[in-house]
Amino acid sequence: ETFPLRGTVTLIPGDGIGPEISSAVMKIFEAAKAPIRWEERNVTAIKGPGGRWMIPPDAKESMDRSKIGLKGPLKTPIAAGHPSMNLLLRKTFDLYANVRPCVSIEGYKTPYTDVNLVTIRENTEGEYSGIEHVIVDGVVQSIKLITEDASRRIAEYAFEYARNNQRTSVTAVHKANIMRMSDGLFLRKCREVAENYKDIKFTEMYLDTVCLNMVQDPTQFDVLVMPNLYGDILSDLCAGLIGGLGVTPSGNIGANGVAIFESVHGTAPDIAGLDMANPTALLLSAVMMLRHMGLHDYGNKIQTACFDTIRDKKVLTKDLGGNSKCSEFTAEICRRIQDMA
Amino acid sequence: ETFPLRGTVTLIPGDGIGPEISSAVMKIFEAAKAPIRWEERNVTAIKGPGGRWMIPPDAKESMDRSKIGLKGPLKTPIAAGHPSMNLLLRKTFDLYANVRPCVSIEGYKTPYTDVNLVTIRENTEGEYSGIEHVIVDGVVQSIKLITEDASRRIAEYAFEYARNNQRTSVTAVHKANIMRMSDGLFLRKCREVAENYKDIKFTEMYLDTVCLNMVQDPTQFDVLVMPNLYGDILSDLCAGLIGGLGVTPSGNIGANGVAIFESVHGTAPDIAGLDMANPTALLLSAVMMLRHMGLHDYGNKIQTACFDTIRDKKVLTKDLGGNSKCSEFTAEICRRIQDMA
Ligand SMILES: CC(C)[C@H](C(=O)O)[C@@H](O)C(=O)O
Ligand SMILES: CC(C)[C@H](C(=O)O)[C@@H](O)C(=O)O
Repeated sequence: ETFPLRGTVTLIPGDGIGPEISSAVMKIFEAAKAPIRWEERNVTAIKGPGGRWMIPPDAKESMDRSKIGLKGPLKTPIAAGHPSMNLLLRKTFDLYANVRPCVSIEGYKTPYTDVNLVTIRENTEGEYSGIEHVIVDGVVQSIKLITEDASRRIAEYAFEYARNNQRTSVTAVHKANIMRMSDGLFLRKCREVAENYKDIKFTEMYLDTVCLNMVQDPTQFDVLVMPNLYGDILSDLCAGLIGGLGVTPSGNIGANGVAIFESVHGTAPDIAGLDMANPTALLLSAVMMLRHMGLHDYGNKIQTACFDTIRDKKVLTKDLGGNSKCSEFTAEICRRIQDMA
Repeated sequence: ETFPLRGTVTLIPGDGIGPEISSAVMKIFEAAKAPIRWEERNVTAIKGPGGRWMIPPDAKESMDRSKIGLKGPLKTPIAAGHPSMNLLLRKTFDLYANVRPCVSIEGYKTPYTDVNLVTIRENTEGEYSGIEHVIVDGVVQSIKLITEDASRRIAEYAFEYARNNQRTSVTAVHKANIMRMSDGLFLRKCREVAENYKDIKFTEMYLDTVCLNMVQDPTQFDVLVMPNLYGDILSDLCAGLIGGLGVTPSGNIGANGVAIFESVHGTAPDIAGLDMANPTALLLSAVMMLRHMGLHDYGNKIQTACFDTIRDKKVLTKDLGGNSKCSEFTAEICRRIQDMA
């Protein structure tokens, strides 16, 4: 992977609390002296030639150069017919893998401890094909599209991820007992790819069984790979296990190193502008981004400062159980980073 | 609802531990003097005229008369091409609603307490249509079929259920932001039916959001209604919250009172015949059945004896954390029932 403008990141602050948490992340990066140059862009879709929705040319151009984006929450759809920005971004840059590490945060109390798993979701097809028909009045069909190429690609991504991140097992999540042809194809590709990764244990499990086992003992899972909708569900379920979307990072990965990292929580309009937002999800997404760019030391330093702040419990935002403002939480993380130097 | 042979139940003991837990249930019913006559039948599919799989005529005939079935776990598919018995039974008797109450059991420790919700799953269409095609080599589509009739029918069932069971809210679970036409139709029917039940609060929520909220605080949910696959997933997830499939009852309900109640756990071949199985899931399914037949007093008595035995912790099967045999656990429940008289 090569980064033509190594160090340049397209920053999409987003709506609602987006600008606040983005500037929190920039402050923390500055404290860590992370070698990143931000190029701020607005991606809200516009109507292009032929009436098709597209992201604005200057945002597209920035991403095409930088290859790396960091994105806050977006308020979408902003009007009837307006596309989901998440879906449009995934499509525009062919971000085929959605990666969400779910790791228990020490000191942040949830019903579970020691969760340490990663969901890898196929991000381009499946139930998200968008193909639907009315057959006759009152009878509708939606088409789930599964291809050999996309299935192999995501399976390969999952095994490569496991190998590169010192993980030991990959579980393919499916309902091939019901959708024999589509999930069957997905599963077959996972099995084939598994043959090339003898160092990684491969298992397969029904989605319903995964859900049941997940809430009973999430520590049994490591890397999970699955079609689009199952990933949508499981990634949120797993986020719930470790404290919700406010603390869960996410990355959307494409070919040739292209990637957008994002917090997946909402825009929280009720607290926007009040210096109350929690920047953790966006910050941890930015840490994923640093690692993706090969800047592991900066990533580790920032992550340590963030987790130490949470474990310490003295300076926490409201949603984390504290009384501090976003700016105070941010300053505390910066202080810890400076102390490390 | 009328039961032509009121008191007759078609008993499908099933495979593996099925016969043991079925006979445990029969013993407990006897102790409670429940006015049930069992008609034991084998439902394992056979090849009928034209090579179509069907359930044996004498089992079909028994169900057609009794209208009520109680079913243990079935080992399926037993051969390549053999259908899933669960699916075949749902189809044969048009059991359109799968109902699973998930209620925390006092004294049985799980990460959650005070769970008290019911999942109601559309059981006949959706992602389970079985329609799949290869478009071209390496490209497969599965069709999710949603109809107005089936959506209205399940929505009406959910609201009726809520009203008849002193429940106060119904949540429709969907992904109509993605599957706008199919889940959109489902959701529209739920909204329409909700208009006729002003006494029941109606909300709608994305499936991913439900999963996240469910593991964070399941006590916020009451009755949930959803298309087939989402129900498959959520019902298992919720079972996990209260201790798993070994303690979760299930009912498949059709028109005119026809219904099959079943334990949804597996056949557990490793412990079959060893007097180690836990009959709780089948017993609580049988309690649902008694209530469905209007025999509430018998149902309540048996349920109380079962929950008291679990709360007391002295006589428990291995999976429940004890050292007792299936027969001892069964005898303890019978003893408590006799003490009530
Ligand atoms: C916003 C929505 C389109 C999206 C999805 O369903 O994929 C979201 O739930 C996600 O997981 O990113
Ligand atoms: C056995 C299988 C066909 C079934 C399903 O997927 O519906 C099971 O998971 C269930 O929930 O009853």
